[in-house]
Amino acid sequence: MNSKFPASISRLIDAFASLPGIGEKTATRLVFHLIRSPENSSKELGEAASSLKTDLKLCEKCKNITTSNLCGICEDSTRDVSKICVMEEALDVLAFEKAGVWKGVYHVLHGVLNPLDGVGPESLTISNLLNRVEGGGVEEIILAMNPSIEGEATAMYLTKQLKDIQPEGLKITRIARGLPTGSELSYADEITLAAALSGRREF
Amino acid sequence: MNSKFPASISRLIDAFASLPGIGEKTATRLVFHLIRSPENSSKELGEAASSLKTDLKLCEKCKNITTSNLCGICEDSTRDVSKICVMEEALDVLAFEKAGVWKGVYHVLHGVLNPLDGVGPESLTISNLLNRVEGGGVEEIILAMNPSIEGEATAMYLTKQLKDIQPEGLKITRIARGLPTGSELSYADEITLAAALSGRREF
Repeated sequence: MNSKFPASISRLIDAFASLPGIGEKTATRLVFHLIRSPENSSKELGEAASSLKTDLKLCEKCKNITTSNLCGICEDSTRDVSKICVMEEALDVLAFEKAGVWKGVYHVLHGVLNPLDGVGPESLTISNLLNRVEGGGVEEIILAMNPSIEGEATAMYLTKQLKDIQPEGLKITRIARGLPTGSELSYADEITLAAALSGRREF
Repeated sequence: MNSKFPASISRLIDAFASLPGIGEKTATRLVFHLIRSPENSSKELGEAASSLKTDLKLCEKCKNITTSNLCGICEDSTRDVSKICVMEEALDVLAFEKAGVWKGVYHVLHGVLNPLDGVGPESLTISNLLNRVEGGGVEEIILAMNPSIEGEATAMYLTKQLKDIQPEGLKITRIARGLPTGSELSYADEITLAAALSGRREF
């Protein structure tokens, strides 16, 4: 069907349609919306997308997405660095921060173990987390993976790894199953997030 | 909420969220999907959006979107140029072309009359259509505006304008209103039912 369009149109349709949750029909409508809009709308989107990754790096400590060596949370001296909440994605950190339910720090794994997709422990930031724990001063690790099969497996793997190091008095907990199985952490409301945090149990 | 993000992230979130049907949450997910994707995904989207309008122009005859002076349909000598189907948008032309139901040519208005939004006849390509008809050789004008209040008003305005020119033997028709295939009669609204009844044909 795209052959019916000029190349510049089908190119943008394809780019939109490669995004999750956007099919070819929605992509086509978005492109035609941009064609009808003033030229700076598509230019602005174009420049924003092109420069997206230019300044982005990962926080040296927690691997959250940031533009400096340390992220704002790791730089914040009021945060309790003895408690690390382990997240799948930077987006999940944002969910906790928006809810304002966590005063400790984070560790972002950037994914979960998924052997079928070729995601093994070395693809995630697990070794960085273990180094942080071995570095001392950590009293509690809260596992806050999504309540999915891969999240479960990752939590179990992490627990085993952390118990192998066995730092004195390290408590490993996980957020409570206030979240319905199969849902997405970053879509959860603040009360659910708060309940899930306060109801955490020894793993 | 965007202040929690590096500037390059919030900029792209804002650009996505300005598109129709994409809210801030969806925009955020799209951006984080791009962050997780290889860098050429966001670069490709960026370049495609930036160059979207570079080569686009409107067909000299029918005002469809094209890259040359005439669109592919107006250049196609097998199309019946004596029958012009008048559309609101270039996207509507595509719907007809995909269905393969029309062998005549088109005229794209690029909108409908909408005084509340400041869209008057001069904002559309109405004068171009009248010129085409005055140029001669046109036997039928099919009005294929969307079945909305604005579409109705535009169809009525066009009919009046065309009748003012009064070219000999010009037939003005409009696409039928009725029940769409696969729909349920009991769910149809009253106006659709009335249109389906009054437009009935011998079986």
